[in-house]
Amino acid sequence: MKPVIFDTDIGIDDAMALLFAHYSEGISIRAITTKYGNASVEDTTRNALQVKEMFAISAPVYQGASAPLSTRLGKGYPSHVHGKNGLGDVQFDEPQVQAETWTAAQALVEISKESEGRGEKISIIAVGGLTNIAAAIALDPAFPSRVGELIVMGGAFGYNQHSGNVSPVAEANIASDPLAADIVFTSDIPTTIVGLDVTQEVTMDKFFIQSLADCAGLAGQFIKKTNKHYFDFYHSISGKHECPLHESSAVAYHLNPDLFSTTRRPVRVVTEGIALGQTIHSNELRAYVTDAWDNIPDCTICTQVNAPAVLALYQSTLALAG
Amino acid sequence: MKPVIFDTDIGIDDAMALLFAHYSEGISIRAITTKYGNASVEDTTRNALQVKEMFAISAPVYQGASAPLSTRLGKGYPSHVHGKNGLGDVQFDEPQVQAETWTAAQALVEISKESEGRGEKISIIAVGGLTNIAAAIALDPAFPSRVGELIVMGGAFGYNQHSGNVSPVAEANIASDPLAADIVFTSDIPTTIVGLDVTQEVTMDKFFIQSLADCAGLAGQFIKKTNKHYFDFYHSISGKHECPLHESSAVAYHLNPDLFSTTRRPVRVVTEGIALGQTIHSNELRAYVTDAWDNIPDCTICTQVNAPAVLALYQSTLALAG
Repeated sequence: MKPVIFDTDIGIDDAMALLFAHYSEGISIRAITTKYGNASVEDTTRNALQVKEMFAISAPVYQGASAPLSTRLGKGYPSHVHGKNGLGDVQFDEPQVQAETWTAAQALVEISKESEGRGEKISIIAVGGLTNIAAAIALDPAFPSRVGELIVMGGAFGYNQHSGNVSPVAEANIASDPLAADIVFTSDIPTTIVGLDVTQEVTMDKFFIQSLADCAGLAGQFIKKTNKHYFDFYHSISGKHECPLHESSAVAYHLNPDLFSTTRRPVRVVTEGIALGQTIHSNELRAYVTDAWDNIPDCTICTQVNAPAVLALYQSTLALAG
Repeated sequence: MKPVIFDTDIGIDDAMALLFAHYSEGISIRAITTKYGNASVEDTTRNALQVKEMFAISAPVYQGASAPLSTRLGKGYPSHVHGKNGLGDVQFDEPQVQAETWTAAQALVEISKESEGRGEKISIIAVGGLTNIAAAIALDPAFPSRVGELIVMGGAFGYNQHSGNVSPVAEANIASDPLAADIVFTSDIPTTIVGLDVTQEVTMDKFFIQSLADCAGLAGQFIKKTNKHYFDFYHSISGKHECPLHESSAVAYHLNPDLFSTTRRPVRVVTEGIALGQTIHSNELRAYVTDAWDNIPDCTICTQVNAPAVLALYQSTLALAG
């Protein structure tokens, strides 16, 4: 079981992904780091503590960024997607546990050192914007060298005809802090990007949700309750009775990368103008007029996904909670 | 025969497109307007005059923009693609004819008025950046209402897995003046965009070129001579013995739009940052966080092309020069 830091702006589908990681046999959650995004950082931290307490997740929670490093797309929080409290406005008991004193960035740096001391590199699954990861790089420039793997849910590259969801080209997590994402993607952290290209291919319907409610105990019931708001939002924009498993797809990549096809390219993020938040990888071996993609480490970019296998992996993992 | 203004930064493939328009039975070239782009405006104007003289094109030539309205991508001229003189460094006699006194923008405005006086709207085929068209709008805000149709070769929207050719997302014509393109695409001019999405599907090989040299008289021999430089460039970047018929695809659309599939969307152009020059259309009926695509007229965007039919149309048209 590889130790993983789970970085999140928890969020309805973030909570689903956290439960996926928690009940999977391949992941030991070492820490949960929070940030603003789907709701304020106070709300997302409370949500993390509530999920931790309800499902006896032993990992400590560290509160992180309350705002982006630089210009983000939009303002406020997407209550139309995640509810005002970030969990579909379902009310849960106030948590008895508290967040730790370290900030998320401090926790990322210190836990990476601790792991290094044991001769291993920490893995990170990041299912929100990348402010905490960029802040950790700023805190300690050697941080990237101690990260074994960073799996990011975010971005969109135009594969499978999927483009942005908060602008024609920008995806919500990356658009919540474009500069932070550009810092992370151009750093030496070995990064895999699980973008809308694949997450929008992994859609769950009401039968899927009901199967979890039936077979995954309290976790399944939690998912059914919180997802009502999320489902209603997706139905309102698409007319379909289904919604994507964005954040859980990043966990699935960690558990079984063979479920995805990938390409390796340098990635930059647009930090200004109408394309703000767009992720762009270079394409061809040609003499571009621009040098913006030169001398940047490759990211691994998911281009295709075996969606039924991801859904089946989610179900079989959550069944362990039943 | 509909009168057409041919706006161009002539250019090897621009010259091919101009000959295509000249020998086609459906087009009467009313004027040739020039701009910087593939070479300086002095060079492109000389090239236009040379082609006019060599092939007895009756249309007058009007010199236009020597620089973009705002930041463009890159600097200098692409001599590695078009040669230093813009015609593959093949030397032709100095032209005896001269450009007219009106600027390109003046000519666009005045000719559109003249056409209106005859109860018709002028068509424009633009195969360079859109500086002259934007300048005409600035000169006369009523200009858009007098244009029946503008067909632009430029941009890239990611269809058929084609993205940018001067950056991962930007196409050369649009990148030569992103702000001008944004002004034109958001104006009331009925605009069709023939981008890399389709032009990179229409590729010619040496057999095609030789068929023109054999059957299209002096025009075919001119094309064979000037294209050597262009072919060598494309071979150097792709390893293939073929190159795209970019500019001629816009003429083909004018002659027979049924050879293309299209979609209609509002289009914006990125005017800053690493995505400078990217063309972006809005995608879905959803509440984007950005309003940058709101309340903008639709452009027609080519998404698919019957490439063999375009090539055959080019050959059969040029055969009339033989």
